[in-house]
Amino acid sequence: MKDSPFKKRLKGLTKGIEDKNIDMLWIVQPENRRYLSGFMAHDTQLNESSGSLLITQKKAQLITDSRYTLVAEKEATDFRVITQKGVFQDEFVKQVEKAGGKSLGFEGDHVTFSLYSDLSARIKRMKNPVKMKNISGMIEKMREIKDAHEIALMERASKMMSGVLDRVIDSVKPGQTEKEIARRIEELSIEAGADGMAFESIVASGPNAALPHAVPTDRRIKKRDHITFDVGLRVNGYCCDMTRTVFIGPPERKIKEIYKIVREAQLAALEFVKPGEISSKPDSIARDIIGKAGYGSFFGHSLGHGVGLATHEAPRLSPRNPVKLVEGMVVTVEPGIYLPGTGGVRLEEMVVIEKSGPRILTRNSRYYDF
Amino acid sequence: MKDSPFKKRLKGLTKGIEDKNIDMLWIVQPENRRYLSGFMAHDTQLNESSGSLLITQKKAQLITDSRYTLVAEKEATDFRVITQKGVFQDEFVKQVEKAGGKSLGFEGDHVTFSLYSDLSARIKRMKNPVKMKNISGMIEKMREIKDAHEIALMERASKMMSGVLDRVIDSVKPGQTEKEIARRIEELSIEAGADGMAFESIVASGPNAALPHAVPTDRRIKKRDHITFDVGLRVNGYCCDMTRTVFIGPPERKIKEIYKIVREAQLAALEFVKPGEISSKPDSIARDIIGKAGYGSFFGHSLGHGVGLATHEAPRLSPRNPVKLVEGMVVTVEPGIYLPGTGGVRLEEMVVIEKSGPRILTRNSRYYDF
Repeated sequence: MKDSPFKKRLKGLTKGIEDKNIDMLWIVQPENRRYLSGFMAHDTQLNESSGSLLITQKKAQLITDSRYTLVAEKEATDFRVITQKGVFQDEFVKQVEKAGGKSLGFEGDHVTFSLYSDLSARIKRMKNPVKMKNISGMIEKMREIKDAHEIALMERASKMMSGVLDRVIDSVKPGQTEKEIARRIEELSIEAGADGMAFESIVASGPNAALPHAVPTDRRIKKRDHITFDVGLRVNGYCCDMTRTVFIGPPERKIKEIYKIVREAQLAALEFVKPGEISSKPDSIARDIIGKAGYGSFFGHSLGHGVGLATHEAPRLSPRNPVKLVEGMVVTVEPGIYLPGTGGVRLEEMVVIEKSGPRILTRNSRYYDF
Repeated sequence: MKDSPFKKRLKGLTKGIEDKNIDMLWIVQPENRRYLSGFMAHDTQLNESSGSLLITQKKAQLITDSRYTLVAEKEATDFRVITQKGVFQDEFVKQVEKAGGKSLGFEGDHVTFSLYSDLSARIKRMKNPVKMKNISGMIEKMREIKDAHEIALMERASKMMSGVLDRVIDSVKPGQTEKEIARRIEELSIEAGADGMAFESIVASGPNAALPHAVPTDRRIKKRDHITFDVGLRVNGYCCDMTRTVFIGPPERKIKEIYKIVREAQLAALEFVKPGEISSKPDSIARDIIGKAGYGSFFGHSLGHGVGLATHEAPRLSPRNPVKLVEGMVVTVEPGIYLPGTGGVRLEEMVVIEKSGPRILTRNSRYYDF
């Protein structure tokens, strides 16, 4: 029998922590938790955990409360499910004591200051206290490179989203509001079989398209509007993310001008999204083109980001913290130009990096050749 | 001109921190941020803040990045919007230095260990370092008591949800899957004008109803099934939350028996949801009834929770951390009995506490008098 993807990941992980001299690993971040165990529950709120993993060289355990026990047992089949009695902290310290190592890796980027303070005080009172080590980014690093199954899910999500977006774009009429259009996207996505949206859909028309993170409003579409759609849905937890700017009527001169620049920047950047390249390179290629055209200060965000179980994950395509691009990474390429008061253009593809270069997952035909 | 609700809240808050000898308050939690400023943005992910508030006796500031500047200026009209250049930490320390106080209150329940560590190291290097004080729960405490405008929104949300649920229940047919029904609830909610769902809808049929936090599955509804619906939507950010267990055909004996007990427990508990009562009292009333009927160990969660900008907020109706109930609080009353392998019943109302007692917001007729 072949190992489940979770078993494979666990094996890689326990090897990894052995090398780092970590005896126990505590995983709280929901996507990391799902990635390692298969446990799909969300945290209902930031301060309400549905469970966490405690992994040693010998044991893989999932600590949860009675609301989630049955689901956890069903989903996280490679893990022993422990149902906490009373508060989490008591159960956690008990299990750490039982495991009896010297160092405990924890996710400092996801554990709150209050919880850390409470746990570290309790751990200091143990007979044999363990040392807490912030290992943030460790699982995120593993998640950067997708396996064939993950890529297949993201391809499915992307096709579904492209299809929905095509239908919506064809049906847009002057007089509709941004909110109405956004709702339609969500309805069709659910109908098509998505788990749900990966993030709140952006439908930004006319001057609203100047807001990179616009929220759909009651503004009615006008005859000569341009509209930026930034949308994504989820399939089996995996996200897609795509953006198109489209024109309802003949485009205004200025918007047409920036459209051409953004598209040129995107195509040029895509050439450098390939194995062995540095992650900052595609960003600088796009930025140079937009800068030379005189719009450098109107492209305020970075070029792209990894996508997977989270909409935004490692690696980033940005000037900061460059890493080497590797086969199996899935990233977005999304330059934009935003002109306050006038409007904006953003074009975004999600691509998987293959040996020969980027393969675009978010195919649809909504580009203009001006 | 009357003060905006945000100005009123700010005034109450600055008085509150003066009493506590806090010079500056840093607010990162999204609902707290919205409650104080009107800034509606979500954090796209746990580790991606769309902005935070820095409040002193004299100044109310919102620090964000260029993606949110325009939206922040439009929504948070009582705040001065500062757009960070570069990373947040630089801008934050600069502003803290400028404000020049001695103590900085921060939300330890919402700031991650990593961010806290980074900021406190930077603050220690300042010419006049400030002391960081964990003030978690302070804004949550303010949010416990709703004003007339907030209650009106929650009433609107509840009516909308009740209407949608009525329509869905009427249309349920054997052969449909839980997922299909959940989708229908979401489509109708959006159609009715909701911002979106307050949480993932629960549609748990037959034995699945034994899972208090069931996720809709592909299970098809059968002729003699019972179904638990736990649903909520949002209007202008405010949530509602309601649960009904309904019967498709004549109920099984066992389920009918626990239904009667749960309903009795709910009605009895509601009598004690009134000003001056202790928040643990309604829980103990419901728990006694369920316990005496022999199902004490099958009611594993607490009786209810506050609702507002968050689905789960203070106060809790549970045995732990009792507080005094006060007029203007909005809470759920939701006893349940869960029988693994067989099914379960939960009945939930959301009520506002008025002078004379609880007023039910989630009215609909889906109760059975057995």
